[in-house]
Parts: sequence; structure tokens; C-alpha cells
Amino acid sequence: MLILATNDDGVYSPGLATLAKAMRALGEVYVVAPDREQSAVSHSLTLHRPLLVEEVMDKVFAVNGTPTDCVNVAVNGLLPKRPDIVVSGINKGGNLGDDVTYSGTVSAAMEAAIMGIPAIALSMVARQDFKFQAAADFAVTLARLVLDKGIRKDTLLNVNVPNLPAGEIKGVRVTRQGRRIYGGSVLERLDPRGKRYFWIGGEVENWTETPDADHEAVRQGYISVTPLKFDLTDHDSLKGLSQWDGLGMEF
Amino acid sequence: MLILATNDDGVYSPGLATLAKAMRALGEVYVVAPDREQSAVSHSLTLHRPLLVEEVMDKVFAVNGTPTDCVNVAVNGLLPKRPDIVVSGINKGGNLGDDVTYSGTVSAAMEAAIMGIPAIALSMVARQDFKFQAAADFAVTLARLVLDKGIRKDTLLNVNVPNLPAGEIKGVRVTRQGRRIYGGSVLERLDPRGKRYFWIGGEVENWTETPDADHEAVRQGYISVTPLKFDLTDHDSLKGLSQWDGLGMEF
Repeated sequence: MLILATNDDGVYSPGLATLAKAMRALGEVYVVAPDREQSAVSHSLTLHRPLLVEEVMDKVFAVNGTPTDCVNVAVNGLLPKRPDIVVSGINKGGNLGDDVTYSGTVSAAMEAAIMGIPAIALSMVARQDFKFQAAADFAVTLARLVLDKGIRKDTLLNVNVPNLPAGEIKGVRVTRQGRRIYGGSVLERLDPRGKRYFWIGGEVENWTETPDADHEAVRQGYISVTPLKFDLTDHDSLKGLSQWDGLGMEF
Repeated sequence: MLILATNDDGVYSPGLATLAKAMRALGEVYVVAPDREQSAVSHSLTLHRPLLVEEVMDKVFAVNGTPTDCVNVAVNGLLPKRPDIVVSGINKGGNLGDDVTYSGTVSAAMEAAIMGIPAIALSMVARQDFKFQAAADFAVTLARLVLDKGIRKDTLLNVNVPNLPAGEIKGVRVTRQGRRIYGGSVLERLDPRGKRYFWIGGEVENWTETPDADHEAVRQGYISVTPLKFDLTDHDSLKGLSQWDGLGMEF
């Protein structure tokens, strides 16, 4: 069994070390991760320059690229064979609701799914004092299930863990991706030379009420497991759109 | 009517200029776009540094960030009011199948959709000699339809145009996101100092056979219009997963 572990907080992040160590219960673990923090890089792929790869410890590789780059390079060149499963995380901070579309952690798992490899993304919903061990233990349990029972092709699992001691986690819920009430903000200022700049701020933590959503499970003290896919087609729109008169336009 | 135009090829790309000019038929057009090429940056958001904004022409702004940054900053600070519609492109190169998950062009439209603003992403399926005018004319027709009839909330439209003279385009098809047969590749070499590097190569142009897919419509000479959403939940997996015994684990 060969396991690839990656993340977006960088190769030296303690969340990744805890995850990789726990996954050794299942097989041989390779770590291929960015050489520095790469949060909110989403599913970026680096095409315009080469990627330097350095083995910083035994079977631990630092790549000067994004989490998606790491999975791509690992599977297509670096690993001795195709991994049986890819785990990404454990991220310092939740990846809930619409935020999954920005997430490097989730995107690394998505890259694996595109390649046809089962994948799990893991995040701690907290800002500090991360209790990684409970999440790492759950990752092993979940990976075992995924390998035993299989998951749908083209699907990855997005896991968010409340930052509680193991004994206080209430259980596991299978959830859907939640939806923020939009409330973005930017700072607008002048730089030392009088030029205008903007700095993108945080989102307001305000969710539409969806009882079976990821954020709701975590709020109640449960681990949230959301199956995600990379087919973004809005199938419910297909029929309605194809009936628009103007789309039968002549050229 | 206020229209925001952006792209990922950079503010000076002729595809963006052609699109912005055509959209002036519908209202006032602001261009807010990256100051340089930003392909394959996906839905990256820049949080760790400020974004410099320069008005390089009347109502044309260059931002040293990603396409997603541009939409975020435009809507949350730069524009005089909330735009009625966002158009992204016209990209030099298709955004078909799984590639939409890497696409800066599509992600800019996705950012608008997350904000609740109707959005269209436009791409020319070609490598050179781009015939942008047909795509720009179609963008105006489609934007008019979107504004008249509305689209589902949380949905954006991903448009791919075959690189044909206007008279040779066969029509419009509403499609679903296609699926590549995975065939990634990387170059592995040594740098001048003997260190190993990798360079991610192109995908093989090999698709699973799906008659109503985006790539198939374009191959046959049609404009492809795919409704996409940012709720990535794989709803078909929800029930099966929640029946996994091990997920009822005790803590």
C-alpha cells in the first residue's frame, strides 16, 4: 500500500507531520508538499516554469509549487508507483461551504480524483491551538473504509474536524457543502507613494440555514464528511437553458 | 446597466478588448483585469498582500493579482455600483472538461456567481489566429438573454467557441462538462547545478465519449454553453456514504 500525503500549509507544517505519521498504520507514506505556505491558491497548476524538488527527509519532498503541482508531479514522476490513496492536510483552518472553491487543501485531493485516485482532504476548524491527533486518527479510519468499500469514481471526501479533544467529538456526519450569506469586504488605502491599494478581507461567518450542511455539523461538535466532485455541470439548468429561443440563433 | 469585464490573459489582451467593446452595446463597461497573464491560477484569492490597482485607460484597471482578486476588488470596492453582469475572457484557448477546475477565466465568473451576480466565461478553442469577434458578438446575445430571462442562482455559464469565421459556426449547444481520459505527463531533468526538476506537460487531447459534452459540441463546429455551479457536493454519494458502518464510530 502506498499513500501520498500533501497539504497547502507547507512541508514543515505539524498538521501534515501528524497526518503522515498516523497514515503509516496503513502502508508506506510519501510526503510531497509545497516548500512554503500556499493557502487560497485553489486548483492552480504551474505550467510556465519548472518545479524544483528537494528530498528534505527520507520520503519527504518539498516542491516550490502549489498543492495541485505536488500531486501532479508526485503521481506522474516522483513516486515509485501510483499511490493507492491521497490524503491532504491537516489544514490549519476549516474548508467549509463556498470556501472549498478557494482551498489548496481540497484542490490537492481534487487533482488526485481527476487522476482516478481516491482522496481525502482534512481540515481543523479553528484558528489556533490545533488538536491534530483526533483528525489524524479519523483520517486512518476513513482511509481504511475508502480502501475497503470504495467511493464513487470522480468523488473526493472533504473532512472538517471540530477542534475538540477526542473524547468530546460527538460523532461523524455526512454533509453537503454549505452556503455563505455573502459578505465580502476589502480595505482601501493609499500606499507610501500615494497610490491606491486594496486588501481583501475575511468573509463574515454567516451561513444560510441548511441543517445537513458541513458548517452546521462542525458547529454541533461532529466531524463533517462531504463528498465532492469536479464535474461542475449544473444539471438542473440544462433543460431550461436549451429551451431559450435565442440559443437557436443563426450564424 | 453596469458590466464588469475581466480575464486571465491580462488587461492588455486583445480578447478582453474585443469583448469589452462589444459589451458596450448593453451598457457602461468597466474592465478590471490582471496586470499580466494568469492562466491556470484557478480560483486563487490573494490574502497575504495588498493589491495595487492602476487605471491604465478610462474605466480600465490593472490589478497585480488573479482574476478572482479582480472580481472581488471590483465588486467590493472599485466599481461605482454593483455590476449587473460579469463577463470573463475571451480566453486564448479552450476551457473544456476537467480543465474548468484549473481555469482563471472560469473562476472569475465563479467569483461573481458566489457574490450572486450573473456571469459568463468565454474561451476560444484554438492555439493561435484567434477569431474573437464571433465570440464577442455571441457574448452580447447571451448576456442579453441572461439579463432578460435570468439564470438559476449560483450558476454561471461557461462558453467555448470554435475558432471559425462567423458564417461557419453551426449554432449553439447547451452541454455538460466533458471528461478527459487521464494522460498527464511531466518532464524530469537536471538543472545546471545537478538538482532534479520537473516541468508539468500538457494533457493528451483524449476525451471519454459523451455526446452532449462541451468538447464534442466544439469539435462539431458549435458554440458550447455549459451551466456550471460552485456547489461541488456529490449528491449521489450522500446516501451511500451515510450508511457506512464505521462512520457511526464512537469517540
